Amino acid sequence: MNAPRRLHLNTNVTGVGRHPAGWRTLANPKSIIDFQFFSTIARVAERGKLDAVFLSDSLALQGHASGPSQSFEPTVLLTALASVTQHIGLIGTASTTFNDPFNLARRFVSLDHLSGGRVAWNAVTTYDPAAAANFGTGAAPDKPARYARAAEFVEVVLKLWDSWEDDALVADRADGRYADPARVHAIGHAGPNFQVMGPLNVPRGPQGRPVLVQAGGSEAGVALAARHADAVFTAQTTLDGAQAFYRDIKARAAAHGRNPDHLLILPGLYPVIGGTLAEARQRKAEMDALLDRGAELAKFARALGVRAADLQLDAPLPYDLIDKGDRTDVSSGFIRSTVLLARSENLTVRDLLDRNPGAHRMLVGTPETIADDIERWFVQRGADGFNLNADVFPSGLEAFVDHVVPLLQRKGIFRRDYDGTTLREHYGLPRPASRYAAQADAVV
Amino acid sequence: MNAPRRLHLNTNVTGVGRHPAGWRTLANPKSIIDFQFFSTIARVAERGKLDAVFLSDSLALQGHASGPSQSFEPTVLLTALASVTQHIGLIGTASTTFNDPFNLARRFVSLDHLSGGRVAWNAVTTYDPAAAANFGTGAAPDKPARYARAAEFVEVVLKLWDSWEDDALVADRADGRYADPARVHAIGHAGPNFQVMGPLNVPRGPQGRPVLVQAGGSEAGVALAARHADAVFTAQTTLDGAQAFYRDIKARAAAHGRNPDHLLILPGLYPVIGGTLAEARQRKAEMDALLDRGAELAKFARALGVRAADLQLDAPLPYDLIDKGDRTDVSSGFIRSTVLLARSENLTVRDLLDRNPGAHRMLVGTPETIADDIERWFVQRGADGFNLNADVFPSGLEAFVDHVVPLLQRKGIFRRDYDGTTLREHYGLPRPASRYAAQADAVV
Repeated sequence: MNAPRRLHLNTNVTGVGRHPAGWRTLANPKSIIDFQFFSTIARVAERGKLDAVFLSDSLALQGHASGPSQSFEPTVLLTALASVTQHIGLIGTASTTFNDPFNLARRFVSLDHLSGGRVAWNAVTTYDPAAAANFGTGAAPDKPARYARAAEFVEVVLKLWDSWEDDALVADRADGRYADPARVHAIGHAGPNFQVMGPLNVPRGPQGRPVLVQAGGSEAGVALAARHADAVFTAQTTLDGAQAFYRDIKARAAAHGRNPDHLLILPGLYPVIGGTLAEARQRKAEMDALLDRGAELAKFARALGVRAADLQLDAPLPYDLIDKGDRTDVSSGFIRSTVLLARSENLTVRDLLDRNPGAHRMLVGTPETIADDIERWFVQRGADGFNLNADVFPSGLEAFVDHVVPLLQRKGIFRRDYDGTTLREHYGLPRPASRYAAQADAVV
Repeated sequence: MNAPRRLHLNTNVTGVGRHPAGWRTLANPKSIIDFQFFSTIARVAERGKLDAVFLSDSLALQGHASGPSQSFEPTVLLTALASVTQHIGLIGTASTTFNDPFNLARRFVSLDHLSGGRVAWNAVTTYDPAAAANFGTGAAPDKPARYARAAEFVEVVLKLWDSWEDDALVADRADGRYADPARVHAIGHAGPNFQVMGPLNVPRGPQGRPVLVQAGGSEAGVALAARHADAVFTAQTTLDGAQAFYRDIKARAAAHGRNPDHLLILPGLYPVIGGTLAEARQRKAEMDALLDRGAELAKFARALGVRAADLQLDAPLPYDLIDKGDRTDVSSGFIRSTVLLARSENLTVRDLLDRNPGAHRMLVGTPETIADDIERWFVQRGADGFNLNADVFPSGLEAFVDHVVPLLQRKGIFRRDYDGTTLREHYGLPRPASRYAAQADAVV
């Protein structure tokens, strides 16, 4: 008696939208520091019954401040968004490379309480050398070190979130007993990267544990996700590739003894929407006309780990150079999905730049073509849902909510209203028990 | 042409109030995880035109969870409080011992934007060994190391807050220029504790820099405050002692070339208010009757750095033992102010316990006696204002707001309404310019 499978949709807020020139079309081009701008995004997404607002993050100023990039710290901004919304989930990215597990666990569970159980942590590692330079290290740790730290970081955070059992806060006014010491647990974690005694100083939150999301595309990232994550954000540019990824990670989760339905696969998707295909293309062309193409080429080359001079606009990607490139300071998920896309559709550098490369699949189309594509990927198990990028907020999201969502509802794959109050409920995930709940030997 | 000197008042939120048994009088004894509880506090304080809500903090569960202690992380809780208030300042405590300057600078300036310029950081060091055990170290660093780190931490944060000049975010839609690179500055900090390149990834906030508060009572803390702080929270139990502290720190600020009026001295004050003195005493006695006196004695002994067996209820403090005690894991400001109080009023351990020792001066009285005491300390320059502790929230604060504030307004020393929008304006502090504003050699 399985519940029918349901599509899940997040709106992914990166800067003021995915298109690099989008800010130049906004009434307030300084929207990156305007709370009303983000408040509107969250309320539009909630009007569309989306599962969550997902905030990207970075720990350094991007692109020499040539355009808006992540600015407000995600847990702070999400807390403010919690106050202007009622239902929608709130997903914040935070680095395991340049944070501390106790402080991070505490911030997220604080927000879980304050939001009534709507929060998720998107655990990432940080390879950006500009970020590393803000944290006292010459360079970010190499990938094995980053992922070893990330795996242990996640383990510590999950333990801290479990350190208070549900019924540990007794607060008996009559006999003066405040917490039940048998239900508040030191975690006594002692590992190579972290030694953390615990317990947390915040009681268990409404979701038991905040939802855990993982976004890395490398083997180490996928292994971490299969073991611990409730949802995976992934860059997939072809249905074949997405299906292979989907099968692989669900099988890995099952091998860990997990119910694979409780690990959601959510690729990125970048729809540019028009009433007709011509209108959609026109919308994109108008923003493209505002681009600094030299800067975009340079950014693309950096992300691929090659020099700008190695890229020729009307030639294919220099696959050899990319293969041989240094992967220290780049996203291997981005490179993998970009190369796959370029090969499968035989694209030139110019074609790729036209898609505003950001690791996500661009669809320029009408609400009907976009809804059909989403349905196809969902039904054919390339995805359990999508992490939607808007070209520019709020208009790109409004077009999706007003014109694509109703079609998905009519297809019977997307909710017409929220039927729960927590993000776990929106995602169809069970509320976990504390790992310490069965133990008799509790210690404060 | 000086503006008249004005009294400044914060409400200091520690747990659910200063009285250890206060939670047993609440309708919801689990208020520590109830946002409405904190929302009420902030709104009552704003009704009373107070300068700010000040959140204490600790980085470990206190007292074996025998009662409510700091729980929600302060920047998260303050962000939620920003959304339910319009004017009141929002002061969050955060440790320089167990945080990172880039992340902390970013969270506070994010909140400064989201609150319209109402935020302050109370910079503290952490000596609690239970906190140290949550951050991978066997013990907290010793005091010289803690304060050396704190001074450098504050310096880095101030530089990061200055790294964007006011007019650096240009966002010119027509020519596509987003930020002016000549006005966004790498800070290139390289010190013994921190190497931070910058710039911050958040543009300058409404206050220029968030207000900086310092709360340590040791020589190193005072030295740090005199140099950098906009306000000092201090434990002062006698007017003489407070006046000496006031004169000293204002003189030190002046010696640094600062205007001493721009460093506010705000001692803690713990009023227990009744319509008559008998009613005030009755209010206190009813809460005292709910205390676990053995636990309170043990807690007091720990805070003094002695054993519980060293304290005899009807004897004076064991001054010799306290003098010889190990100051590693204790607050020297607490010990100094407690010893001063005990000596000056010839108090026994029982007398001291009756005052719910928490480093702050207790006044049990009527609105008139409390308002007169506040006026005396203010006029005689023992204080520029107070950090008010409630016995229990919200009733202790409501009594102050409804009955003491009107008397202070009638005396002409406290505002009848807010005349500014930022915390700097409430505190009468100028908005600072970026230290980099005059430089021509800006670098991103």
